[in-house]
Amino acid sequence: MRGTVLYGPGDVRFEERATPTIVDPTDAIIRLSATCVCGSDLWPYRGLNAASEPSPMGHEYCGIVEEAGRAVKTVTRGQFVVGSFAASDNTCPHCRAGYHTSCAHRQWVVGAQAPVLRVPLADGTLVATPDVPSAELVPGFLAVSDVLGTGWFAADAANVKPGATVVVVGDGAVGLLGVLAARQMGAQRIIAMSRHDKRQELAREFGATDIVTERGDAGVDRIIDMTHGVGADSVLECVGTQESMMQAIHAARPGGYVSYVGVPHGVQLDGQQLFFEHVHLHGGPAPVRRYLSELIDLVLNGKINPGKVFDLTLPLDQVAEGYRAMDERRAIKALLRP
Amino acid sequence: MRGTVLYGPGDVRFEERATPTIVDPTDAIIRLSATCVCGSDLWPYRGLNAASEPSPMGHEYCGIVEEAGRAVKTVTRGQFVVGSFAASDNTCPHCRAGYHTSCAHRQWVVGAQAPVLRVPLADGTLVATPDVPSAELVPGFLAVSDVLGTGWFAADAANVKPGATVVVVGDGAVGLLGVLAARQMGAQRIIAMSRHDKRQELAREFGATDIVTERGDAGVDRIIDMTHGVGADSVLECVGTQESMMQAIHAARPGGYVSYVGVPHGVQLDGQQLFFEHVHLHGGPAPVRRYLSELIDLVLNGKINPGKVFDLTLPLDQVAEGYRAMDERRAIKALLRP
Repeated sequence: MRGTVLYGPGDVRFEERATPTIVDPTDAIIRLSATCVCGSDLWPYRGLNAASEPSPMGHEYCGIVEEAGRAVKTVTRGQFVVGSFAASDNTCPHCRAGYHTSCAHRQWVVGAQAPVLRVPLADGTLVATPDVPSAELVPGFLAVSDVLGTGWFAADAANVKPGATVVVVGDGAVGLLGVLAARQMGAQRIIAMSRHDKRQELAREFGATDIVTERGDAGVDRIIDMTHGVGADSVLECVGTQESMMQAIHAARPGGYVSYVGVPHGVQLDGQQLFFEHVHLHGGPAPVRRYLSELIDLVLNGKINPGKVFDLTLPLDQVAEGYRAMDERRAIKALLRP
Repeated sequence: MRGTVLYGPGDVRFEERATPTIVDPTDAIIRLSATCVCGSDLWPYRGLNAASEPSPMGHEYCGIVEEAGRAVKTVTRGQFVVGSFAASDNTCPHCRAGYHTSCAHRQWVVGAQAPVLRVPLADGTLVATPDVPSAELVPGFLAVSDVLGTGWFAADAANVKPGATVVVVGDGAVGLLGVLAARQMGAQRIIAMSRHDKRQELAREFGATDIVTERGDAGVDRIIDMTHGVGADSVLECVGTQESMMQAIHAARPGGYVSYVGVPHGVQLDGQQLFFEHVHLHGGPAPVRRYLSELIDLVLNGKINPGKVFDLTLPLDQVAEGYRAMDERRAIKALLRP
């Protein structure tokens, strides 16, 4: 088969690779219905995470089980499955506590920007839908596997409750789906920070009640004004930079909740400053597995349509254009069809 | 009257000062039944917070209302009252959310190491006991005003729940009362990190089930071992240094809760490291006011005896010896009798 490999900054190639096969008896092989490019793929694409060698790319996926290892019990050949970017056993203490991305046996899924993918720990990682869904639902399920699960965790980790005032920092696909999640969790006011027309529009469609275009201190001042000097109950930090993190922390009320779900790059927090901000802080790699069944149901029942974040669809062999379009912010998120 | 003034590192003087009087109509003047030296007083005493001018010291207090300003409605002359180290209006949005130490009208109480104290915002700050208590209860009420309230917040902010495994980093009075709070909140296992016999003994008396004497990475390894590789559900960081903070974060399980209640000195948190630790982090100046009524009841009913942290009692005019004894760790906490 041909799959996606990153050779260095800006150098994405779609090239011949070995077709994955069962390695461990707990593996499953999935023929992908769709895959996509993640915001986190842009870090190494932009040279911000040095890759020492060519790296197979992609970790968002849904598709049909082509083969299940002999130890796999819960999914079988022919089923449509959705999984997380982190393979997990779903039985260790960390998984039982809902932190599958810290599973004692965690393995990062790699190489999903390809037609076929090996998923380790299939029983713990994959959730099957009742039937093979129709094609129009596929983008939604693909979103569930990472970007929606991550936005959902952002809202959950920021303790979004019915009636809450929520701020979302970051108008990437995760931030936009953080808006959707906050709406589902009953937030009353959802303020999306975005200066990009198309993203503002989607944020409103997903449930944002207000848009703030200012950034940094000016953005914080706007939030404080809009909340009558109090600050937001919950702030979802969906970027991962020092500026976005401080913006999120300053926008929260004392006793408020700040979540952060983008891998922080160059972020340093001053303990004493954080102390006097009085916020709750929680984040990390989103334990998407915790939410899979719930989110699959919401998509299946048409309650949410997270697939709308894919505003660019390309044949898989044009994956490099998907990276370029996202890097240049021409696309929110690129779906790739194998 | 004579009161306590810090002139510089190690230079505590008990000297003539103006007796406080009502300044604002919302003030109350308290004749103190007891006061004490705080762990946080040791930072400037040790020269770690540069004081540019002589500073009146002390912020822990309980005593009899001698005069109430004309706007004060809830406490009257002759009542025994307990207050927090932060004066708060108890009506602003931050107070209503339970974050009185971030009150919109917050004033830090200063000058409590004296016979008489002015407390601003008396209605919002002070809670009266039903009757003037007997002398043996006074140390307990004094503890309520800061050190117990802070230990209690540490346990609350670390989400201590019935059945939890809790680690307390720091064997100062706050840490010891964090142990007591965790016990009251139903923790099953409470691991106190201490290498000091007398403090270990008090920790056990307050409810610690285990003592760990190792520090830093070795201490973390012990906690991970003792929790079968998982880590603690809740960790109370009651010191405020980089080492103690990292020890606390590493000792928590993924998804676990870390609180920090000592003003951090020189603490820097790396965003990416924190991200992969997957912990909840919450702390700040303890909103003691939130807990005052509850804690007063517990002391009054003899359910808890937090006054045991005072292992040295001195006449107020020997306040300098109180600082020395705590600085040299000869005393856990020094109570001063005016």
